[in-house]
Amino acid sequence: MASTLFFTNCHLSPFSSTAAAALRRHPIRVAPTSLRFLALHSAPSQSSRVAAVAAMGTEASAKVIDGKLVAKQIRDEITAEVSRMKEAIGVVPGLAVILVGDRKDSATYVRNKQKACEAAGINSLEAFLPEDSTEEEVLNYISGYNEDPSVHGILVQLPLPSHMNEQNILNAITIEKDVDGFHPLNIGRLAMRDREPLFVPCTPKGCIELLRRYGVSIKGTRAVVIGRSNIVGMPAALLLQREDATVSVVHSKTLNPEEIIRQADIVISAAGQPHMVRGSWIKPGAVIIDVGINPVEDPNSTRGYRLIGDVCYEEAIKVASAVTPVPGGVGPMTIAMLLQNTLNSAKRIHKFE
Amino acid sequence: MASTLFFTNCHLSPFSSTAAAALRRHPIRVAPTSLRFLALHSAPSQSSRVAAVAAMGTEASAKVIDGKLVAKQIRDEITAEVSRMKEAIGVVPGLAVILVGDRKDSATYVRNKQKACEAAGINSLEAFLPEDSTEEEVLNYISGYNEDPSVHGILVQLPLPSHMNEQNILNAITIEKDVDGFHPLNIGRLAMRDREPLFVPCTPKGCIELLRRYGVSIKGTRAVVIGRSNIVGMPAALLLQREDATVSVVHSKTLNPEEIIRQADIVISAAGQPHMVRGSWIKPGAVIIDVGINPVEDPNSTRGYRLIGDVCYEEAIKVASAVTPVPGGVGPMTIAMLLQNTLNSAKRIHKFE
Repeated sequence: MASTLFFTNCHLSPFSSTAAAALRRHPIRVAPTSLRFLALHSAPSQSSRVAAVAAMGTEASAKVIDGKLVAKQIRDEITAEVSRMKEAIGVVPGLAVILVGDRKDSATYVRNKQKACEAAGINSLEAFLPEDSTEEEVLNYISGYNEDPSVHGILVQLPLPSHMNEQNILNAITIEKDVDGFHPLNIGRLAMRDREPLFVPCTPKGCIELLRRYGVSIKGTRAVVIGRSNIVGMPAALLLQREDATVSVVHSKTLNPEEIIRQADIVISAAGQPHMVRGSWIKPGAVIIDVGINPVEDPNSTRGYRLIGDVCYEEAIKVASAVTPVPGGVGPMTIAMLLQNTLNSAKRIHKFE
Repeated sequence: MASTLFFTNCHLSPFSSTAAAALRRHPIRVAPTSLRFLALHSAPSQSSRVAAVAAMGTEASAKVIDGKLVAKQIRDEITAEVSRMKEAIGVVPGLAVILVGDRKDSATYVRNKQKACEAAGINSLEAFLPEDSTEEEVLNYISGYNEDPSVHGILVQLPLPSHMNEQNILNAITIEKDVDGFHPLNIGRLAMRDREPLFVPCTPKGCIELLRRYGVSIKGTRAVVIGRSNIVGMPAALLLQREDATVSVVHSKTLNPEEIIRQADIVISAAGQPHMVRGSWIKPGAVIIDVGINPVEDPNSTRGYRLIGDVCYEEAIKVASAVTPVPGGVGPMTIAMLLQNTLNSAKRIHKFE
């Protein structure tokens, strides 16, 4: 971290070369983290549709898509539903989270999930296993939760320690409780026409929900997804296609990303590259959903870093018709969708409508 | 069929309004049908790579991608492998096909599959069930073949009679014998990075194999898939993306298909729309894989109709660097890939390399 860093708008250096390498290994860090974004651009509404996006491209400054506000609305809706189910049939949804090892960021996410569950009235069970646990021990926990009728959703916090086979462990979760939606059977159904996945992965589901609640019409649009990860990019592309968008997926081997992104009416960026998408890459009037949460050094922050998106927000806001900020955009939606998946699972298992 | 029909190159009327409606309902008819295409453009070669495609866009006339020739080579390779396995461990691969009802076209496909199996030394088992069979009877056959150690691949000929649930029936095939690759678990693995499907659907696999054997480099190219069906378009897009193409999927809700198709270095068309793709839609030097097999009236044919592709071949050949003909392009590859999947299944089950 010897380099001098500048943070003038979109001209910045990444966190550090070490951090940049780590980012390349784990490009997307979707986290229900910092809820510091306080600039609420519209008052909470009773309606599920927050507000219609202003006519595309006619405004000098884009609408800010307020994920924190929408997530709050959704969590309130979930709280009401959880309460209604409890009163009607005496069932409380339960989410089990398995955390292996002592990664600080993972521990933070799990704690945030726990708090969000409690706030919504969902039972939260946690299994904290030491870093040197065996794969079998993790599988035993999963097996127990698979059988436990009080558990309706099971989540294994990733990444797992390197001595474990992630695929074996994720596949062991019964698909009826796969609230992360990462089981290949759920992904296969998501890809197929006339099939319905039991669960859709939380972050891409949150992206689509933001578009829906902001009244963005998807059908017939050109959409570009940046990144093709199993947890965000790929399922986001499948979801957009299910909504009848014409989808292009841009990734690290794409030769001319800006040319393709410039054609998009809707961009979902999950590249994990700080401020990769510049204003000049954006079609005037496009809607931009920025999934990237990238740490960059910031001597003015008490933590020594701050989080920025894949999209150069200051430039995008001048070109697009609507943009998600980072933080406060997609981030808060992920945990709201996790709660929704857990509630829906409990409803399905108990045939409650 | 009262309309007067003309077949001057790409200016044609579809089969009939009734047939056109049927095409919309069942847009893609991928069949190992007509093997009449006799114009072999290059002599058979020992090499698995038929020939390198000439430098893109520098020729006045495109290279014809000869699917019949490539399929023949692959079937010869399979025949040799089947024989080697039989000699080494005494195992003969077996393919079971279930046909329900008496659709003429389905019966023809099944007969062709049977002949192809016999020619390659693969055991062929057929179950012919009457149209009014119950779903349970079909499931019983599947269950029997799932257990039968002499069967390494199970295929249910589609479409099934309308009183049956296709999803239930296809899901009943054990994924170890799902040589059609239609099980959502196989599709999910196909969509996911770092996962491997046990089987890839035959027609899209055949498309990629044609590109491979003709030396077409996929990595870094712009690819457009026309159509998003479960059996061709969707898996073709996933396969191209696995090969590091930047993929866009065009479909019936796309507003400006020609504009997007014109950007593609590689086009895989599975739209089921006769001669939809005109020469002017094609980027000079692009490689065109035409999956469409569309019947159109032809008074000069003894059958009263002929089969044409989604792409206006006469126009495409002047713009593209390589084109598949219809028939004789992708069609013969489907059955070759089915034999390959069956052989690979037997090898995997018996751990033979």
